[in-house]
Order: sequence, then C-alpha cells, then structure tokens
Amino acid sequence: MSIRVVVIGAVALGPKAASRCKRLLPDAEVVLIDQGSRISYGGCGIPYFVSGEVNRVEELQSTPYGAIRDADFFKSHKGVTAMTRTRCTAVNPAAKTVTVENVDDGAVSTIGYDKLVLATGSSPNRPPIPGIELEGIGPATNLDEAEAIRAEAASGKINNAVVVGGGFIGLELAVALGDMWGIPAAVVELTDQILPNFLSGTLARMAAKDLTDNGVSVYTAESVQRFEGENGRVTKVVTNKREIPADLVIMAAGVRPNSRLAKDAGLVVTDRGLIVVNEKMETSDPDIYAGGDCVTITNQVTGKPGWYPLGSMANRQGRVIGSNIAGGDERFPGAVGSWGVKLFEQNAAGAGLTLESALREGFDAVKAHVEQIDKAHFYPEKNLMVLELVVDAASRRVLGIQGMCADGNALAARVNAVAPLLSRGALVEDISNLEVLYSPPFAAAMDIVNVAGNVADNILGKRLNPMSQEEFERRWAARADKKDFFVDARVARDAAPMLDKYPDDWHSIPQDQIAERLDEIPKDKEVVLVCNTGLRSFEAQLNLDAAGRKDARSVMGGISSAKRLGIDI
Amino acid sequence: MSIRVVVIGAVALGPKAASRCKRLLPDAEVVLIDQGSRISYGGCGIPYFVSGEVNRVEELQSTPYGAIRDADFFKSHKGVTAMTRTRCTAVNPAAKTVTVENVDDGAVSTIGYDKLVLATGSSPNRPPIPGIELEGIGPATNLDEAEAIRAEAASGKINNAVVVGGGFIGLELAVALGDMWGIPAAVVELTDQILPNFLSGTLARMAAKDLTDNGVSVYTAESVQRFEGENGRVTKVVTNKREIPADLVIMAAGVRPNSRLAKDAGLVVTDRGLIVVNEKMETSDPDIYAGGDCVTITNQVTGKPGWYPLGSMANRQGRVIGSNIAGGDERFPGAVGSWGVKLFEQNAAGAGLTLESALREGFDAVKAHVEQIDKAHFYPEKNLMVLELVVDAASRRVLGIQGMCADGNALAARVNAVAPLLSRGALVEDISNLEVLYSPPFAAAMDIVNVAGNVADNILGKRLNPMSQEEFERRWAARADKKDFFVDARVARDAAPMLDKYPDDWHSIPQDQIAERLDEIPKDKEVVLVCNTGLRSFEAQLNLDAAGRKDARSVMGGISSAKRLGIDI
Repeated sequence: MSIRVVVIGAVALGPKAASRCKRLLPDAEVVLIDQGSRISYGGCGIPYFVSGEVNRVEELQSTPYGAIRDADFFKSHKGVTAMTRTRCTAVNPAAKTVTVENVDDGAVSTIGYDKLVLATGSSPNRPPIPGIELEGIGPATNLDEAEAIRAEAASGKINNAVVVGGGFIGLELAVALGDMWGIPAAVVELTDQILPNFLSGTLARMAAKDLTDNGVSVYTAESVQRFEGENGRVTKVVTNKREIPADLVIMAAGVRPNSRLAKDAGLVVTDRGLIVVNEKMETSDPDIYAGGDCVTITNQVTGKPGWYPLGSMANRQGRVIGSNIAGGDERFPGAVGSWGVKLFEQNAAGAGLTLESALREGFDAVKAHVEQIDKAHFYPEKNLMVLELVVDAASRRVLGIQGMCADGNALAARVNAVAPLLSRGALVEDISNLEVLYSPPFAAAMDIVNVAGNVADNILGKRLNPMSQEEFERRWAARADKKDFFVDARVARDAAPMLDKYPDDWHSIPQDQIAERLDEIPKDKEVVLVCNTGLRSFEAQLNLDAAGRKDARSVMGGISSAKRLGIDI
Repeated sequence: MSIRVVVIGAVALGPKAASRCKRLLPDAEVVLIDQGSRISYGGCGIPYFVSGEVNRVEELQSTPYGAIRDADFFKSHKGVTAMTRTRCTAVNPAAKTVTVENVDDGAVSTIGYDKLVLATGSSPNRPPIPGIELEGIGPATNLDEAEAIRAEAASGKINNAVVVGGGFIGLELAVALGDMWGIPAAVVELTDQILPNFLSGTLARMAAKDLTDNGVSVYTAESVQRFEGENGRVTKVVTNKREIPADLVIMAAGVRPNSRLAKDAGLVVTDRGLIVVNEKMETSDPDIYAGGDCVTITNQVTGKPGWYPLGSMANRQGRVIGSNIAGGDERFPGAVGSWGVKLFEQNAAGAGLTLESALREGFDAVKAHVEQIDKAHFYPEKNLMVLELVVDAASRRVLGIQGMCADGNALAARVNAVAPLLSRGALVEDISNLEVLYSPPFAAAMDIVNVAGNVADNILGKRLNPMSQEEFERRWAARADKKDFFVDARVARDAAPMLDKYPDDWHSIPQDQIAERLDEIPKDKEVVLVCNTGLRSFEAQLNLDAAGRKDARSVMGGISSAKRLGIDI
C-alpha cells in the first residue's frame, strides 16, 4: 500500500507515530512537519539541562546511542521525510490537504495526505500580566529557551529567580536553579498548594517543606500582579502579597493544547480546546488521528474525559497511531495519571485521584495516610516513606495513591504497583493483599503499600478512629484551651524529649501500659494519641476502645509525618 | 465473644494472625505456641545478620521501634499469651484440643481451642548425604544457626565455604560471606542453573556471572556425593565432578512444609505435604486455619495449586486468618510469585512464569528479551536493565516477567507494575500501554517495560525475527563454518573494536546504510544482526525485509546482554 501520511508536529508523538507507521508500511511516504528547527527532543529533560546535569542540549535530541535526531537522521534511519521550519496553517479534510508555510521565506504550499496525524502538542500559558514583555521573563519549554536560561544561570549574573507556577515544570526548574547553580528561586503559585490536583494538601505541604528547607521560597494562594523592570529587563515581581526581587522569571503557569488547526478544520474539539479522539486515536474525521498534549483521553478512574500532557503518554499513543494507520486495530484505553517528580531530598509520585480531587468528583472519599520504612526495618540502607491511599468508602474502590520518599525508585515501586489496579476496579482488600516483591533489601514483610490498604480497611471498618495531621496541628496549637489530652504511646524513652519540652501538655503512656493507666486520662477531655508513625497509637486506641474509652483518636503518620509537615512540636 | 484461639507456630504468620485476631476480638483468649525460645523473628534477615549488615540478632526480633518481640512483649503489647519452648505433638479436631509438650521438662498438657491456626512453617531439607553429620555443616534458617555461622565467619578461621543449593537463601548467604567477610564460597546446585523456576536459563547465567565476577564459584548440574572431614569437622565437599575444600558448609537445598500435625489430625494434605486451604485460609476442618510455608494456595497464572514459602505471604495471610477468626469474610485469592534478590552488583527479580516454566506448563510461550537504560537516556544517574517478558503466543496473555539491574528498586518498579496484571488476564498490549510513572529521573518516555511489551508484540506479529543470545553464542562459536554473516548495525565507530578483533567474521553496516549496502551481504549465508541492545538490529532487519532479504535475524539484547552472559566476543 503506497500512501502518504502527513504528521504535523515533530517533538514526541509525531516522530513516534511517523517511525512506527513507516516501519510497518515500508512503501508509505511519511512526511513529518514542524515549525521549529530542532525536532524530536526530550522536552521533559529541559530542567536537567538547565541544571547542568545534562551537559549538552544535543543530548536531549539524541538517541540512546548518540545520534542526533534531525531531518537527516529521520531520512536515513527511519525513511521519514522531515520538513523543519515549516508551519502548517490549515487542514482541509474535504480535499485531504494541508497548507504549509516556510517559516523563513514565507513560501506557501499544499500537501495532500491519505492519513493525517495532528501532533500539535501544547504551548505554555502566557497570562496577560503587565510587564510580561520585559527581558528575562519567559517559559522554558523549548530548547532555545532552555539554552538561554542555562546561559543566564551560568553567567553568574542571576541572583534571584522567580518561577511562576508550582506544577511539575515549575518545581523542577526551581530545584535545577537552586541545586546546581545555587540560585535561590521563589515559586509563586495561584492555588493554595503546589502540585494542585496531584498531591493532597498534606503531601503538598511536605513537598513544599523540602523546597523551603533547601532555599526555595514557596508562595501559594498568591497571584502575580505585575512585573517591574529597569532598562527593559525584569527586576521585580509584584504579587498581591509581596514584592520579590527577580532578575530571571520563568513562566511555568501551565500549558494549553494547540488545537486551532483541528478546530478550524471542523474536527470535534472540547470547550477546553482538547481534540476529541476515540480509543483508536482517531478524531471525528477517521482519516485524521491526533494524540499527545492536544487531545483528551478517558480518565480511567472517573470515566470522564481527562487530559495527560506527558511525554510518556505521547510516545505510547504515537505507537498506537502508527500501528493503526498501517491497518492495525490498537487501542489506547485512557490513563489513570501516573506521575513522579524529584525535588531536593525527597521525591513525590502518585497515580489517580487525591483525597481532594476524589471528593470534588463526588466520591465518598477517605484517605489512609501511612508512614513506614521502605525496606525491612532491620535492613541498613532504608528511608521512611509516606503514602496516602485514597478509597471510596461506599464501594471500597481504590481511587488513587500518592507519596513521598527520599528514594524515588522505592516510591515508584509502590505507585507503579497500585496504578494498574486503579483502572481495574480494585478494592481496598486488593491493596492489603497486593503482591509486591519481597526480600529485605526491597520491601518489608508487611510492606507499606499493604499497610496502606490495611489502614484504609481499619478506617472503613470503624476500628481505626483517625485524626489527620492538620487536625492534630489545630488541636495542638489550641492546647492552652485544655480541651484535648495528648498521649504519646511510644516507649517512655522516645517520649521524653516532648515531655521535657511540654511538661503540662504532653503525656507519656506507652501503648502496653495504657489499659492499666486509664485513670490518668481525664474523662472530660478528648484523647489524641500519637506515636512515631501511627501504628502504636492505633493499638493504644484499640486498647482504650476495649476499655470503654471510645473517644480516642490516633494521629495518622505520627511524629514522623508531623516533622515532614514542619508542625510546631 | 469470648473464645480461645490457639496458634501453633510463632515466627511470621502465627504472631500476625494472633495479633490481628486479638485486636478485633479483645475478649478472646489468644495463645501462641512455639517450640523455640525465640519467636516472631525476621528469618529473611538471616543473610544480612550473617554478613554483619544487621549488627545484632535482636534486630531481627525487634519491632521497627526497637522492642524485642518476646513472650512479655506479646502479653503486654498485644494481649496474646505466648508459650515458648512448647512443642505441639498432636491436634485432636474432634475434641478440639491440642496436646503440647514442654521442651525442657517433657511435661505434657492438653489445651482446648475454639479456633486453631496451624502456622507450622517449613524446615530445611536435609538430604541423606554421607558425612552430613560432620561439624561445620548445617542450615541457616533459625537464629541459633545464624549466630553460629556469623561467629565462625567472624572468627577468621573460615577460608572456604560451600553452599549447597542455588536458591534465594543459598545465594544470599554466598553473597553475605563473600561481600562482607571476604570468604570465597562455592555454590553447588543440582539443577542446570541457579534460581531454577525463577529465572530463565539466560538470566540465571547472567546472575551467575555476577557471582563469579565477585569470587563465588558456581557449579550447576552438580550433585554432592559426600562430605569428608578431619577430627569430626568438615574439610571437603565431594561432588560428582570435583572436590571442593570446605571448612563451612551451609545447607540451603530447599525447604519442606511442616504438615505432619495436620496430616495426623486427618486434615487434607497434598502428596507434596502441603496443607490444603480455601480462599478464607480454612483447612478441611472449618475450625482450623492454616497459612504460610505449610499450605498450598492458587498459582494465579496457571490456576493450579502453588507454593509460596515467603515471609511476606505469611504476614498477609496471617492478617486474613486473624480477621476471619474474628468473624470476617476475607479472602486470599492466591499469588503470582513475586520475588527479588540482591546479589553483588546486580539484583534479580521477577513474577509469574519464566519461559521454561511456561513451556513446561503447556503454554505456547515466547519471551521478549530487552535491555535498556532504566531512566531517560540523557539523565546522568542510570543503569542498564534487562527484562524478559513471557507471553502466550496463542492468547497474547502475559505470563511472567523477570529481570536484572544494578538498581534493585528501579527493577522492582517494573516487576511490581506487571505483577498485578498477571492474575488479571492482561495481554501484551496492556504492557505496551502500561502506565509506569514517568519523569527523567524515574523512567524513559518509552519505558523498558513498555518496550518489552512492544518487542513481544513485534515477535507475535512476525515483524521481529528474533535470535536468542544462546543461539547467537552457538553461531558465533561456529563462525569458522562460514554459514552465518554477522552484521553490526551500530555506527562504524562503535563497531570498530569488534571489527579490529574479528576482521574476517564481523561486518559493520550501520543500520541507516543497510538498504544501500545490500550487495555486501552474501546471498548464501544467513544474516545475524547485532547492535548494542537489539533496537537498531531490529530496524536493520526491517530494512532488509523491505529489501526482500527475509532471512535476517536480530539478536535480542545485543552486545549488552552478550556481555552480561560472558559470551566470548
């Protein structure tokens, strides 16, 4: 079958779809069109190039064996014709043509297609903030921008950077500037937390503490009012709450799908500007495929349309498109939204819904917050990990998992294990019995991910009466009111420092003594039980329950999570 | 409900079942019986105690917060009565009693139960090899044995150790002796590979190379004929192939279930000696539960009875038993057999069936063998990982995954992601589209696990014409016959060293030149295509296919896997 396949966009999905299609249909003519000079690059690697961890920008454009993926490469290695610096200005589905314009000389031409792929991706939001046109302000989404920022960072002239937006790219860039160049960045985020929709408020605060502990200022629930400058270059960011000196501003306030071509061509596009595709990645015109950042695919947790602008999605979808153009019948059923981000000392990762997003979606959602060592506790190299498992109380269905750990791969080993279950209707008990690989250097015999299931089960079964860290913080801050009685369920030795610091408000009753020391707990106060991670405080609560003292609550995550949050204890 | 629950065996499952049951039924009397002095210990930690990585043996008996789990602990913290040094000699299901004997004074007594839990575990095989009674020969499965071996290792008097058995415990102990004490061990394994049934022959050879590269001798397909000694202490191990000097011999020739009590009580026990339980972990007597190393549970890949003697299984099953005794209705549906083991520089892990075990089970099994970097290739800290995905050609069902990597957690992140799918009928395309979390420090945009799915898909679709490493090795060894034409599809620079070494037999034709250099490939020879990892050799094979040269085959895993195997190139 000798057909012509035209692919618009050559960053991630485009090259993959083109290569796969050509591999399966050696006789096809495959044309890859992009307005940029550099194609097929790993945009996700930009923060690591900015930091200097990736030495040369060419590494982001290279194959694992070091060949630069330019137009010559696609011709010689893949048999694909790449037209760079060529902008597609219109798609004519009736005539099955695209109109393209040479970026350099403005020459316009028309190219016919049998099958078309829209891999137009997304563009950074550029909010209309006064002063945004000043020099030193811009996004970091393509290689030219990345080179400019790296050059500025390396110049030694940047003393204060501001990142507008506390999403993945914003945080990665703040870490890159701080960790490798020693440039203190301030992150300004419009919503009340970093990584909104990806982390619960609790975990987001833990992530923010990792940033602030390492010199990054994090300002949430704060909006940029204007940028000010001198001699045409930015010097200051003015928010609704403060003025922040800045000689470099990176705009990372999200991205928007590039779907104008699709919309103008009459394809079905959502109000949010996302191209609608079916599981075969076909648009409303069966001769036109689309995928990557510019389309909506099913959120497999909610069943609703979702949006997953992520390089890995684009690659996998590109393969499906390439196969289907070649006569295949492959499906891309949707996503649950797995993600990971490396911060300074900690890594955060997750999949599916957070507690807050699940509640917003109408689920009767509850979260189990657990903290535990990521290996057998006796194994020498280990880290504490925190996990939050989000479940629907009514159906016991698992809706999401998020967490943090100093060991990013150990965290990925848990999140990746739960992610495939989120689209398969798994219940709490599937997590309790989840078979993660065990051996002391890899996991605990009762692994943290199983414990997260067990804790959720104990909450739903009303055995565990949990208290969130935030409520503990509120009650502890109000301890002068003497409404609560704080009991440290750890051994006396471990409780001693808190007891010394707060002799009037903190009480030490080790869990194994709680039944016999019941009379030390005033009947007119509510009992707040705390231990290192929440395990012994749960046991203590059960002991109190059995003794008829039913009001006790166990603080999930214990002192370990309180420290991660920076709670004032 | 005030009932009496008796639990026989107090290492892993017993304490868990007892504690969970008591937690849910505070009024129950829960009695935990064990013939040993020390209970509730992490037997899986023994190799790390032997090595010295775990400093004190008490750490294996402690909670994460440092409390020793002895009888006093179970009484004070859990409300469970533990009877140590007490052997159960008989179960009488009709009378609902157990007969126990005090190990020290021989006193016999009878204890009634409402519910009984058999957590009798397993014992090391002690094959009747002449000389096995010599001093210095024994297993390493309990803490006393572990202390004795550690003391001998630390004494400086052990110069040569032999480990009989190349399973998990045997390898972990060989690593422990070599890595931390510098004692060269020899592993003698009866079957033709280490980790039989857990790794393919290919991966087992890679694992063995990691051992031999680090001073451990690995003798497979070799049986111990006798032990010889002097003054009552072992000095030599005589196999059917050699004599090995030995002043310490660790018997790690597998374990057998302890099911005599169950059998004598008339419970249903398989021919292999495994107690039969249903998904609620009830034996054939509904008042008697059993779990852990002494029971058979369903192999969720084959649907047949399986056996998973592993601490993590015991812990999870113990919780199910405890809940069910307390009136719950929890299920333990079976297992797919996830595992991991840390060697010297490499880690191995897997889940489900290997190629060989799948073929033996009657599947039309095929494996995709892939090697790729575990992170974005431009990310600075990274390792090559090898994965083998085992699939059924007829149904496209995924049967298993195994692999090796220097980063154990990175490997776990892939194996754990696939494991939950093995019991859920997942197909090859579910692996191609598997959503592992992505960001350059965690994974590649087209991650190795997805690539494993893609390679399996290309094999099943007859696009990839694969050659195994073993066949490549055979053909390369027979290169003097001039039947094959070996083509290096890498860039000329990378192929140069091989070309210098083998100017007559090795040929360099970079993949992008293969179509135009077709006439360099003799028509009367078969074409063997090789590159670094198998990606470019596949592309080259497709290029040859398109050019009408249909006999070319691509070596899976390329030079990287050949090096892991120690193939003579």
